[in-house]
Amino acid sequence: MSGDTGQAGMLMASEMAEQPRVLAALAARRAELSAEVRGALGEGDAPAPVGIVLVARGSSDNAAVFGRYVLELATRRPVALAAPSLVTRYGVDDRLDGWLAVGVSQSGKTPEIVTVLERYGAAGATTVAITNDRDSPLAATAKATIDTAAGAERAVPATKTVTSQFAAFAILAEALGGDTTLFPWDALPDATAEILADDEPAVAAAASIGSDTTGLVAIARGLLLGAALEAALKVKETTGILAEGASAADFLHGPIAVVRRGLPVLTLSAGGPTAADVTEFADAARARGGHVLAIGPSGELPIPAALGDGLSSITAIIRAQQLARAISLQRGIDPDAPFGLSKVTETH
Amino acid sequence: MSGDTGQAGMLMASEMAEQPRVLAALAARRAELSAEVRGALGEGDAPAPVGIVLVARGSSDNAAVFGRYVLELATRRPVALAAPSLVTRYGVDDRLDGWLAVGVSQSGKTPEIVTVLERYGAAGATTVAITNDRDSPLAATAKATIDTAAGAERAVPATKTVTSQFAAFAILAEALGGDTTLFPWDALPDATAEILADDEPAVAAAASIGSDTTGLVAIARGLLLGAALEAALKVKETTGILAEGASAADFLHGPIAVVRRGLPVLTLSAGGPTAADVTEFADAARARGGHVLAIGPSGELPIPAALGDGLSSITAIIRAQQLARAISLQRGIDPDAPFGLSKVTETH
Repeated sequence: MSGDTGQAGMLMASEMAEQPRVLAALAARRAELSAEVRGALGEGDAPAPVGIVLVARGSSDNAAVFGRYVLELATRRPVALAAPSLVTRYGVDDRLDGWLAVGVSQSGKTPEIVTVLERYGAAGATTVAITNDRDSPLAATAKATIDTAAGAERAVPATKTVTSQFAAFAILAEALGGDTTLFPWDALPDATAEILADDEPAVAAAASIGSDTTGLVAIARGLLLGAALEAALKVKETTGILAEGASAADFLHGPIAVVRRGLPVLTLSAGGPTAADVTEFADAARARGGHVLAIGPSGELPIPAALGDGLSSITAIIRAQQLARAISLQRGIDPDAPFGLSKVTETH
Repeated sequence: MSGDTGQAGMLMASEMAEQPRVLAALAARRAELSAEVRGALGEGDAPAPVGIVLVARGSSDNAAVFGRYVLELATRRPVALAAPSLVTRYGVDDRLDGWLAVGVSQSGKTPEIVTVLERYGAAGATTVAITNDRDSPLAATAKATIDTAAGAERAVPATKTVTSQFAAFAILAEALGGDTTLFPWDALPDATAEILADDEPAVAAAASIGSDTTGLVAIARGLLLGAALEAALKVKETTGILAEGASAADFLHGPIAVVRRGLPVLTLSAGGPTAADVTEFADAARARGGHVLAIGPSGELPIPAALGDGLSSITAIIRAQQLARAISLQRGIDPDAPFGLSKVTETH
């Protein structure tokens, strides 16, 4: 991989490189995982929870934002993202008979996520865990588990564990009766491998960003919004740049005031139903002098069109991983362990 | 009000100054507004929707984040924030029998918000509008309306219309059976007037921020999270600074990498159940050299303790309005109409 300085960033790169294999293996297990979820819901062909709530933090929360979209498409119910403090700080006593609660944690050990999922289960919800460890406390408290089986992750910026959580939500959506044509699984391994084989666009994009740049915005709309939030998070924690992810529809008016000459504006689109919204935002950002870098089928950071809106979050995130890593290396930061951060899984 | 340069920012200041009166008038009407909502729900003492979904954009969405907390405390159900694109771009056909859907729009004319609330009503939800105009299309499509009656707003940064939306969500929570001791209405007019009478702390805080500062983070947890998001939005659109609002729990680990020497870090806390979380974050930010400015009972930007967690979002937002306006004026920007932005109410 180009752009390396010595051994810095090799751990992150090697974990990124595992993504085609991890995702293919997860996709191959989707019938079995889907059956486990459907068994937990104890229903027939179209399990229909009255409501759905997702519990997550950090990168897992970005996967949950993707889940929020595909699960509503599947179940035709608005999906809530949990506010864990309501349980852990304010002591709310939820009533969740007939609800589905999904806890997401790579390690499965984040105490707050385990506590909240446990409480939701006690409140009547059917609980599902999405975790990288089937033997974790989160899996133990859940009635069904989608284990991403991504293997150990040691670099601080989570990569393979995050894209596999996005895939897990697609599997969950299928289990709940979602449109399976939304997720072209067969194209996933080649599409991700194609991107990982060539990080030159990301290295060039990183070089095009001023070395004194301290801000960036990452914009999408609809199914790729979670990927935009994850792109921003990856840039923040890997490079120290204050990167904000947001919806094009929200950012187009007041917040666009922050777009000034040279501000890097990362846009994410797979050419789906929200493509025109993202283009409208990109045009407005360019008109203000923003330095637009598009992740999309014909963008500066190209992704294959084959994955559509359903799975392009994964390829878009891989492009963002490459970009974050390249910026980090170009600034002399070791992306494997930037800013003295250590791998944290036990947030309370 | 100090810090003015000629007439710049006088419109924003005059609208800010109306807040004690607007909020007192709204609080005085809460029994009547509550009765209208309860009538729409057609139930007895404790109307209990099976699920709740809130539809909003921009500042209204920040009020909805506050609503998301107080409505879950009131109803013991997780609350979803709508993803409007699912309706307007992906054509999802939700099933919402027994649900409560709340649309929030100052003008009541934002086409997307009106469309989504209309569709939710057709899907079976009981619909409530929170708007500044009882004659608007949003109010016309809703079964009940909480009209904030804040009067016309002409400055680009929304102020009185936003704090009145926060108050409207508190009224809605009471209507749905929430703990009325959470909202010390009687203390609201004096508390807001006290802050508006003295913007020196905000002017001093603005002066303490380097004139070349291009980033800021605004952090809270729990009931004040919506206020932190609104503080960030106000700073973004009024000053052009890239300000990100976030939960202390989310920002404490990876994202804290962005906190470098001198970065302004605005913290919001009312001393409630999440106070220790905010303090923990502030300490971590200070340890990295961040320039912490606390909005709180004993902060650099003081707010009265009397409003507790339930209504301190309003006073915290007023402090943020003062700060955003002061930064803007100190940089020679007219906060009434910054960056060529115009008052937009018709987002599609």
